[in-house]
Amino acid sequence: MAIISSTSYSVHLGKSAFTAVNQYLRKQKPSSVFILCDENTLQDCLPILIRACPLLAEAEIIEIEAGEQSKSLDISALIWQTLIENGADRHSLLVNLGGGVVSDLGAFCASIYKRGIPYITIPTSLLAMVDASVGSKTGIDFMELKNILGTFAPPKGVFIFPDFLQTLPDREKKNGLAEVYKMALVQSASLWKQLRQLNTLNIPEPIIAKSITLKNTVVKKDPFDQHLRQILNFGHSIGHAIESVYLRTQQPLLHGEAVVCGMIMESHLAWQQKRLSKSQLDEITQTIFTQLQPRDLSALYLKEMLMALGHDKKNTARQFRFSLLEGIGKCGYQQKVSEKQIEKALVYYHTLFA
Amino acid sequence: MAIISSTSYSVHLGKSAFTAVNQYLRKQKPSSVFILCDENTLQDCLPILIRACPLLAEAEIIEIEAGEQSKSLDISALIWQTLIENGADRHSLLVNLGGGVVSDLGAFCASIYKRGIPYITIPTSLLAMVDASVGSKTGIDFMELKNILGTFAPPKGVFIFPDFLQTLPDREKKNGLAEVYKMALVQSASLWKQLRQLNTLNIPEPIIAKSITLKNTVVKKDPFDQHLRQILNFGHSIGHAIESVYLRTQQPLLHGEAVVCGMIMESHLAWQQKRLSKSQLDEITQTIFTQLQPRDLSALYLKEMLMALGHDKKNTARQFRFSLLEGIGKCGYQQKVSEKQIEKALVYYHTLFA
Repeated sequence: MAIISSTSYSVHLGKSAFTAVNQYLRKQKPSSVFILCDENTLQDCLPILIRACPLLAEAEIIEIEAGEQSKSLDISALIWQTLIENGADRHSLLVNLGGGVVSDLGAFCASIYKRGIPYITIPTSLLAMVDASVGSKTGIDFMELKNILGTFAPPKGVFIFPDFLQTLPDREKKNGLAEVYKMALVQSASLWKQLRQLNTLNIPEPIIAKSITLKNTVVKKDPFDQHLRQILNFGHSIGHAIESVYLRTQQPLLHGEAVVCGMIMESHLAWQQKRLSKSQLDEITQTIFTQLQPRDLSALYLKEMLMALGHDKKNTARQFRFSLLEGIGKCGYQQKVSEKQIEKALVYYHTLFA
Repeated sequence: MAIISSTSYSVHLGKSAFTAVNQYLRKQKPSSVFILCDENTLQDCLPILIRACPLLAEAEIIEIEAGEQSKSLDISALIWQTLIENGADRHSLLVNLGGGVVSDLGAFCASIYKRGIPYITIPTSLLAMVDASVGSKTGIDFMELKNILGTFAPPKGVFIFPDFLQTLPDREKKNGLAEVYKMALVQSASLWKQLRQLNTLNIPEPIIAKSITLKNTVVKKDPFDQHLRQILNFGHSIGHAIESVYLRTQQPLLHGEAVVCGMIMESHLAWQQKRLSKSQLDEITQTIFTQLQPRDLSALYLKEMLMALGHDKKNTARQFRFSLLEGIGKCGYQQKVSEKQIEKALVYYHTLFA
């Protein structure tokens, strides 16, 4: 089993991660335990977890509806209400058993209830394993803006059982792979090489470990997202904007699906600014296109994207500043981007589907 | 002017605190400024502030209704909405101009918007000056429970103009004095002696400075309220319970008014446990009674108080643990208290009004 040490907690990855959960429970003796899950993890993951960790059998289950719409202030209020009604105190534990929504929302609620109670993360989707589980960011959406409300609050531990991935549909696997590809592009040319040779959506455990380790290294250097950590935002400025726009439609995109589009467009921005060569841009576009099959966004217009971009947390006073690649495996941040350049990147993306 | 250094910020106290605000604004150049106030501070304090700090003339004003009922999730949502609609970004500044409600609520909203934007506190009530302004605790009420939701988030600075106190009604002055008396009882026999000789509600500036310094020393030793800081909770376990119970009535108590009752009852608990002598208990009760005139709570019953106590953040799994005096100027914490002892303390309090 891999154990990756983060700021104040560890990420346990592998078959024996259940043992680590049991150890945590025996050592910390929480006064009560709550498990947050959605209807999918309630059915597919909770029984496995409780069988392996019988100490959790008495836990109060809080079930939310699967999907981004649950990352709201209303659902947060319901969770706080449940905690209060069941007498949760400062030594109670919240176990977040689910994908990115459960883990962002659960961590947000735990970090604010009584000014913070302990929580642990048991990610069940690839996206949550490689992304939401590391970094101590919590968040909910508000007024159709992604993660606009949130805190920095580290979990007491992250416990990753790769077996949970077996039940995931392909769309969910690609959703998580997007963040793995991103980690490679911003930090590791060698991981990128490995990924290019991947001919399956069943990602090997060492690649998960590598991706988490890469992210963890960046997060530890800049826990509060003040400088270096912004490289993790590659693909996300445009990605978040696309996600926000599509959240309002009948065909919302998953986070990773939006990031994949964002990575292609932001690579084009890097090429426009001579940070990437033409062959590097082609290699990125082609690899992502073949392996992750991004969505055709022909209904996406520049104006709505710019509107949504104006609310990105990384932008200040309507100046656009992105994190752009400086070659493969290297990324800068706070790079100025003009509206004109964003338009060209959008046209480039549209052309791929022409 | 007194400048008291706290964890990551300073408290500026005195006539030239306005100068310090100007210096802060010139140095930090926030991308936009929002001032949170209530109808009272809008009328009485905002014009004075803007005259002294012309850089704030362009600020967006967010007005809330005065009173504890504004410390809610609904009002927080309105504040976040205003920030979003006015394009507040990570370099925007929130100025909290008001008493405890404005400062707890504003700090809460700032700490969660985009995972935290800078805020400064300009307390206008004595309570906010000596209590809410130091300690980095933010909070709102939820389901009739005081400060049940909150974060730890330091301001960028606290700027105290004692002149604001001149407009306060006597009830508000006593509200703040309660926390000054508490600081003396838990930390400083010499301040307690000074307070006993006080024959005015117009508290001298050096006493404000002394009280803040005492609190600050404790907070710096235990910023996240894990051990020592719990001494600040003296009078507050019962005080919060009383406050919660009376919040539902037509005659709610101010925070300090509830704490004053709590201090008398908890001093009685300390006497029951032989931590205080009879003469010390008498001295405390008599001083508080004469100088702060606590409210007759003859309509308060044990059962409702215990119910509310069960939700106090400091209690775990319905065991009562209080911070009790160990003489005058010294306080312990995590001391077990029985229901029977609480009942006796309540009877003692009732008897004072017989």
